[in-house]
Amino acid sequence: MITVGIDVGSITTKAVLLNGSAWRSVIRPTGCSPREAGREALEELLNRAGLARGDVDFIVGTGYGRVSLPFIDRAITEITCHARGAHHLLEGADMVIDVGGQDSKVIITDGKGNVVNFAMNDKCAAGTGRFLQVMAAALGADVSELGELSRGAEPVQISSMCTVFAESEVISLLAQGVGKERIIAGIHRSVAVRIAAMAERLGKGELILFTGGVARNEGVREFLSRELGREVIALPESQLAGALGAAVLAREILNRK
Amino acid sequence: MITVGIDVGSITTKAVLLNGSAWRSVIRPTGCSPREAGREALEELLNRAGLARGDVDFIVGTGYGRVSLPFIDRAITEITCHARGAHHLLEGADMVIDVGGQDSKVIITDGKGNVVNFAMNDKCAAGTGRFLQVMAAALGADVSELGELSRGAEPVQISSMCTVFAESEVISLLAQGVGKERIIAGIHRSVAVRIAAMAERLGKGELILFTGGVARNEGVREFLSRELGREVIALPESQLAGALGAAVLAREILNRK
Ligand code: SF4
Repeated sequence: MITVGIDVGSITTKAVLLNGSAWRSVIRPTGCSPREAGREALEELLNRAGLARGDVDFIVGTGYGRVSLPFIDRAITEITCHARGAHHLLEGADMVIDVGGQDSKVIITDGKGNVVNFAMNDKCAAGTGRFLQVMAAALGADVSELGELSRGAEPVQISSMCTVFAESEVISLLAQGVGKERIIAGIHRSVAVRIAAMAERLGKGELILFTGGVARNEGVREFLSRELGREVIALPESQLAGALGAAVLAREILNRK
Repeated sequence: MITVGIDVGSITTKAVLLNGSAWRSVIRPTGCSPREAGREALEELLNRAGLARGDVDFIVGTGYGRVSLPFIDRAITEITCHARGAHHLLEGADMVIDVGGQDSKVIITDGKGNVVNFAMNDKCAAGTGRFLQVMAAALGADVSELGELSRGAEPVQISSMCTVFAESEVISLLAQGVGKERIIAGIHRSVAVRIAAMAERLGKGELILFTGGVARNEGVREFLSRELGREVIALPESQLAGALGAAVLAREILNRK
């Protein structure tokens, strides 16, 4: 049985092809057309696997762009897909912290991939990848370097939670000659504090998986672990949790038929 | 009896010299030293009036920079000064909406210049002058032109309250060819909606005075009136309410002695 999950996020589109216990993936920028991004991701995935659309038994779409995909068999919310994908990546994970380019979510699961409760922020750029992007631009750095640049640095205090006010703080810290690595560490802590507050309102996780684009940032992961008093785990495949969960759910749907 | 009020705000420093029922004022940029800005504003005010420091009976400082002024006789919070200044500018005003460069406040008074209740936002850039500045930059306009540029235009819907997300919306509206005047009107409405929500949580005003730097923006004032269902009044001297209130309070202090 071959299934595909496609997660069309605001910045990147992820597609996973699941065949038995083996899976492969494709990641590409969403650009301005979620529909095109989804179609191209599927095509690339099939090409690499040497398969045709007809070889795939079921396709589940997820992510904010899922409604724009005409070729999927079903659309399922990100929350459900993420919970299932997290369980597949890290068995027994009971809290998923997903921080993407424009939003952040915390999902509490039953440890078997089913959603128990969740909280989401997509109203305020603070505590999302967007905060990091704005700060990276202010620092003249690329957002993907931030985790590396601040390694081991003592964080400087960033007092504003607001992205706009924090950006001004960062610019004035730079002007005062404060080292970039300390400023970046402060930025990471600010994001972590904000997300930890959201997580703590929901409950305590025993096994916490960190997903979404920001999970690749080691600095944020470390401060998140400190804030929550428990190791927060990011896996290399963290970013694929949604797409993988969608592919797993596609298989479950077929199995129930 | 001659008194002076100095209001050191985040962007501009205002000073008012009150002599009987006559008063004169000075406005200058705060720059990076609130202390210097306050000293220079006082000097300029005294020079223009042909007076020396010794001729002034009492000086009250207010605004966020009031703590940095060594030459004042007393520091009083902005809220108290604003309420008093508003009453002096518009007798009987019972609601003051003050929107500055980095914060916004709504003050309910007893109609005689005394504070009954207030609410303040200095945590989130949305609903402050900062929101307008960010949008002006995205539009390649000067923040002072916005009110004029959108005159009579039908506002476009800006769906994000967050400054950062709204900025992206504005950029994409521009790319879609939506007219600047409609976008700017949408921006003004967004600011007004946010501030009106804060005002309505506090109560209803009968006579509403709009103060702070943003009160000069006619677009915001109009949408604020529509949202509150009552004419919101901005006076040319609106920006001076804090400094004027400080000078009035200085006189009251002397009168009580
Ligand atoms: S606090 Fe800042 S980042 Fe958050 S909604 Fe307000 S403007 Fe946006």
